[in-house]
Amino acid sequence: MMKKINCLIFLSFLASLIMAQGKKSFTLDDLLTGGCTYFQMQPQNMYTTWWGNRCVETDIDGCCLINPDGSKTPLFTLSDLNKWLGSTPASPALRSCYDMEFPDDGQPIVAVTFTRKEGNTEDQTSIYTTINFKTGEKTGEQSYPADATLLDRSASSNNLAYVKGHNLYVITDDGKNIPVSADGSNDIVYGEAVHRNEFGITKGTFWSPDGRLLAFYRMDQSMVPDYPQVDISTRIASTYPCKYPMAGEAIHKVTVGVFNTATGQTVWLQTDDPTDRYFTNISWSPDSRKVYMIELNRDQNHAELVCYDAASGQREEVLYEETHPKYVEPLHGLQFLPWDSSKFIYQSQRDGYNHLYLFDLSSRQTATEQPTKAGGTCRERVTVTPLTSGEWVVKEMLGFDTREKTVLYCSNEIHPLQSNIYKVRVKDGRRTLLDNGEGVHYGSLSGDGSRLLDRFSSPTVVRSINLTETKNGRTRNLLTADDPWKDYNVPEITCGSIKAADGATDLYYRMVKPVDFDPNRKYPTVIYVYGGPHAHNVEASRNYLTRGWEIYMAQKGYLLFILDNRGSEHRGLAFENVTFRHLGVEEMKDQMEGVKFLKSLPYVDTDRIGVHGWSFGGFMTTNLMLTYPDVFKVGVAGGPVIDWQYYEAMYGERYMDTPQDNAEGYKGSNLRLKAGNLKGRLQVIIGYNDPVCVPQHSLSFLRACIDAGTQPDFFVYPGDEHNMMGTDRVHLHERITQYFEDYLK
Amino acid sequence: MMKKINCLIFLSFLASLIMAQGKKSFTLDDLLTGGCTYFQMQPQNMYTTWWGNRCVETDIDGCCLINPDGSKTPLFTLSDLNKWLGSTPASPALRSCYDMEFPDDGQPIVAVTFTRKEGNTEDQTSIYTTINFKTGEKTGEQSYPADATLLDRSASSNNLAYVKGHNLYVITDDGKNIPVSADGSNDIVYGEAVHRNEFGITKGTFWSPDGRLLAFYRMDQSMVPDYPQVDISTRIASTYPCKYPMAGEAIHKVTVGVFNTATGQTVWLQTDDPTDRYFTNISWSPDSRKVYMIELNRDQNHAELVCYDAASGQREEVLYEETHPKYVEPLHGLQFLPWDSSKFIYQSQRDGYNHLYLFDLSSRQTATEQPTKAGGTCRERVTVTPLTSGEWVVKEMLGFDTREKTVLYCSNEIHPLQSNIYKVRVKDGRRTLLDNGEGVHYGSLSGDGSRLLDRFSSPTVVRSINLTETKNGRTRNLLTADDPWKDYNVPEITCGSIKAADGATDLYYRMVKPVDFDPNRKYPTVIYVYGGPHAHNVEASRNYLTRGWEIYMAQKGYLLFILDNRGSEHRGLAFENVTFRHLGVEEMKDQMEGVKFLKSLPYVDTDRIGVHGWSFGGFMTTNLMLTYPDVFKVGVAGGPVIDWQYYEAMYGERYMDTPQDNAEGYKGSNLRLKAGNLKGRLQVIIGYNDPVCVPQHSLSFLRACIDAGTQPDFFVYPGDEHNMMGTDRVHLHERITQYFEDYLK
Repeated sequence: MMKKINCLIFLSFLASLIMAQGKKSFTLDDLLTGGCTYFQMQPQNMYTTWWGNRCVETDIDGCCLINPDGSKTPLFTLSDLNKWLGSTPASPALRSCYDMEFPDDGQPIVAVTFTRKEGNTEDQTSIYTTINFKTGEKTGEQSYPADATLLDRSASSNNLAYVKGHNLYVITDDGKNIPVSADGSNDIVYGEAVHRNEFGITKGTFWSPDGRLLAFYRMDQSMVPDYPQVDISTRIASTYPCKYPMAGEAIHKVTVGVFNTATGQTVWLQTDDPTDRYFTNISWSPDSRKVYMIELNRDQNHAELVCYDAASGQREEVLYEETHPKYVEPLHGLQFLPWDSSKFIYQSQRDGYNHLYLFDLSSRQTATEQPTKAGGTCRERVTVTPLTSGEWVVKEMLGFDTREKTVLYCSNEIHPLQSNIYKVRVKDGRRTLLDNGEGVHYGSLSGDGSRLLDRFSSPTVVRSINLTETKNGRTRNLLTADDPWKDYNVPEITCGSIKAADGATDLYYRMVKPVDFDPNRKYPTVIYVYGGPHAHNVEASRNYLTRGWEIYMAQKGYLLFILDNRGSEHRGLAFENVTFRHLGVEEMKDQMEGVKFLKSLPYVDTDRIGVHGWSFGGFMTTNLMLTYPDVFKVGVAGGPVIDWQYYEAMYGERYMDTPQDNAEGYKGSNLRLKAGNLKGRLQVIIGYNDPVCVPQHSLSFLRACIDAGTQPDFFVYPGDEHNMMGTDRVHLHERITQYFEDYLK
Repeated sequence: MMKKINCLIFLSFLASLIMAQGKKSFTLDDLLTGGCTYFQMQPQNMYTTWWGNRCVETDIDGCCLINPDGSKTPLFTLSDLNKWLGSTPASPALRSCYDMEFPDDGQPIVAVTFTRKEGNTEDQTSIYTTINFKTGEKTGEQSYPADATLLDRSASSNNLAYVKGHNLYVITDDGKNIPVSADGSNDIVYGEAVHRNEFGITKGTFWSPDGRLLAFYRMDQSMVPDYPQVDISTRIASTYPCKYPMAGEAIHKVTVGVFNTATGQTVWLQTDDPTDRYFTNISWSPDSRKVYMIELNRDQNHAELVCYDAASGQREEVLYEETHPKYVEPLHGLQFLPWDSSKFIYQSQRDGYNHLYLFDLSSRQTATEQPTKAGGTCRERVTVTPLTSGEWVVKEMLGFDTREKTVLYCSNEIHPLQSNIYKVRVKDGRRTLLDNGEGVHYGSLSGDGSRLLDRFSSPTVVRSINLTETKNGRTRNLLTADDPWKDYNVPEITCGSIKAADGATDLYYRMVKPVDFDPNRKYPTVIYVYGGPHAHNVEASRNYLTRGWEIYMAQKGYLLFILDNRGSEHRGLAFENVTFRHLGVEEMKDQMEGVKFLKSLPYVDTDRIGVHGWSFGGFMTTNLMLTYPDVFKVGVAGGPVIDWQYYEAMYGERYMDTPQDNAEGYKGSNLRLKAGNLKGRLQVIIGYNDPVCVPQHSLSFLRACIDAGTQPDFFVYPGDEHNMMGTDRVHLHERITQYFEDYLK
């Protein structure tokens, strides 16, 4: 009897040995950005850019033209470029050709930027040079300080705007360096993205189409306190300034200037008192004469599209208004039709889903308040025609095909988890699918929109890059990558849907089963969660968007479950704004539907359920641990929101209003008040210098737990901000894994 | 067979049940200060004070005279006092009689202090009142702001000095409030203890014996940076100032003023440039005409006893000098003989152990440099006679018996772990033991030193309080407390010695065995360590000084081991200063001798050895974990020093010199450089607002571990400083216990 058992054990050992020999295992370094072997574990890739309508491959050691038949014609090599720039092989000006630009459709010109030390000084200068790559001759050069930031070059005038020391400067094409502002400081900033990058704001300078006028943001944040951030790397620890406008507190005041490069004068848009107002989505008219902004009140429930005269700054008219009882969130500027400057595309969720609308400036009307499908109101002072509609969302507008007069965009019309590329004809709204109708596609359009570079993956395709004629959809495959994990023991990854807590809405989940899954065993299960707006975790791309850490955990014998609850993105306004004024409540109800589903599976060990998330997901993780202490045994909450009063006004008040207006809602989502509920093991991890979810969240939570007699665990990454990058990211995930290994396994 | 085993299991279960019924178990609350049941688990106590030579018991609800025969005569009750003060039972001025003082030897006067709200304002005033407790009449009253700090009252003049907003004030006996300084700030402070309370400095004001002149410290710390401490309890986290002079960096400059209450003028002692000098142990001559200081250079290896004229501030003479190649550490001011104002007692380690020396100002001599037994030099400009000597230390000088002309002190002459009370006759140095020769005694002398209150405990006596005639040693027991733990399952606590790593020196340890100890089992073992100077952990007092947490851990099945290594106190200078310029090295060698001893014990599980310590003990814990990663499996390091360059100059440079002078030593003790060695589980715990071992220590260590790829654990107590108090202390020890339970058990 004993012999037989020993024999069986030996056979089982042999089998696992064979499996281990047959398939390799991942390290965290293989699976995480920042891991030293991460890039060699990624599917083959190809980097391209446009030279007018021509597609150019920009590789590390040279650039090739990609011909219509898919063949490649070399344009130049890296060593050519360095030779033309006069640099030696020992200290090359350029180290790769990845960032090459081809600014002139008609000419063989490549634009490069490099840094040069000036004379015997320590000063560095950045040089922007254009070179004729047929002759090797330089055709232009422009220099600016190497510590210039937020560079913004006008394609039409070649004028360059940049920021240094919170002041804005312009360098003209002929090399003149003009200071636009002089009093920039930590309190007053120029040319930077404002309103903490909410409302689609990603930059602070906006060249007019002719490249002669520069609209720019000025932000007075002198009334906003600095959150005290501590730098421990100095000889004696020191603080550095970090303006942080908390919910319900005084916020910055933004104004918009228009700098004229010919006169050197700045005109200010006459917006009236900027107190408690958001100025978003700055756009220019094609003739460079008008500046448009979408203006939002602090309550974020009333948006106005306003037209200003660029020369005088005068406020000319309100073209359109939109309200909603919860919030309106303008995220996209105006896109004028290249072939008709009286019309532009506007994006709105007024029908409940983000769609494209054609606004016609040449067709004026008396504005009357009309109800919107989303439950708000609108006033149209120009004719507005929906270009797209339906219970799906336009995820991204790619641009125009000027010859066919179509608009190109990505949407999830086929399936909520997909992203496919369509063209819509402006004259009649006829939609045509331009891709294979599967998975998730990202598109990039050539100069006139006649060609489309389509980058694609799906659960069965790791990466496919295709060049498509937008006119007829004819396509040529440039790259189909092999699966780089084919020799590895990859867990089974599935996707499915359950009903939300409302009993009606479909929610999508991803499940990553333990490697060598045995349906007769019971596995410890970890729910990874984000759950907040403007994000999703499940989609029909490679591995259903599985994160590397999930693969690693599956390899260690865990089952992973990831569910996009109501409140997350790409499912329409009502799906998102159900959380209004009580963040966390509906999201948790949905996650508990996920738990109910998990409990129905025989291979889930319901006594060993853990949860992990970061940021909003850290809020969810902490909240779930404290609200369902008998369900979740172990949690790891990264950079969590603990109390929305410590979060910034711009994002926080959209969903929660102010603490003054919504005391009940803030109280209900204040996790300090639940600190005494902690039963399982919860580790809170933050970047010590997190400027997003400032340390006050987690530290005040620890204080509350200490006072309540509960024992969370805690870790900080000194010097790191809201997310850990590089090798710290690997260290972090070792840490998270170890915590589940210690307490959930 | 099976039945027999079951039966045995049942019997064993029954036995433990009986034991559990027979003896109770402790909670952490029972064992830790801050625990809600701590005080009821302490031995009975008695609080006393002196009324001249009469001993008075000050209890919560009244005061009693303790008669020579031990009987008690009530003096007054708390309600008497409150009645005399005119307060109502609903809002009594006083809530206990613990702090009563009897300032007048000849009169039935009690002095009390209470706080009163002034009129309709929010202002609070503190009132110092003297009351004749025979008649109930007030005999005097003095009021001062309730937020006054650092109160210092002259017993002879009744003048009161206090500090408010970093400025110094004096209130005279007749109620005049005189500001002594006006420019007090975070940069310039008056009347406060200086030099970070090193060199025996505990206060910043020093009344002359006649109570008319006030010597005081002024400290200019404008050149010292603030360590950025963050308060997370404000609406938006904020910083508050915390001057911190780090080793090798610029330090504060101290000067000493003498304020004359009659003239209102301040004279400054003419010390010359105070840069990089320490002014310590301010003392007055009995005639109130001279001020003495012991002045120390920044290198702390040369002390001068200097005499100043109080009226002019003139520097008159250097009476005595002492040097040592490592350091000299003056800790005690001059104590003039009450019966001969030309002589005083001076304490010094010049012979290698702290002893009493009689300095005779009336006997001058030419100072020549002489070698000291400790290896340094001294210069005596007055005749110096040793009063005590030998290879033991005077721990505390208690005062004088003026009738017998003796000096009373505590020493460990009988045994290094004991503290016994002696008198020494000044005229011939004849020593007489005044207590029972056992355990650890604390003494308090009556007005003329004729009576001694002797508080005592030993491993077999939990608390004994006795009143002794100093003349003849006749003693009367006032209280012998019952053991409050007699119904509890107290672990066996033993004490013994091993040889230090030098092979010669005796080191003392305490061992706390697991409750229900079974010598045939193997127990997880935790070493508790401090290991730094000016502290000891083992002595012959109650339970050998066992800390409550050790009892708790023993109850949970751990063996505890505590060893005072070389470098700790009460064993003489050479024992302490062997660590000079390389803190941690010798201390760890000795602790490893302790480990060697533990490994020789059959009941110690050598695979489960843990270590825990705080502050210097946190440094030791971290260092041991990183230096002997194969010995220590689990460690908890509280408020650790990680890099001595982040510690304060005054303490740090004494033992380590400056980072500039001792780069090698700082490198050798910089634990960041060993961060990659971590193998076991190490939790670092700090007070988030620690102003002693500032957070930069631990945070920089975490950074080093992250960079080295090791995984320490971490916790912070927001709002707490160097030590956790109150309920936080209980929370902390739950946490520490849990860590060993998780990883060592």
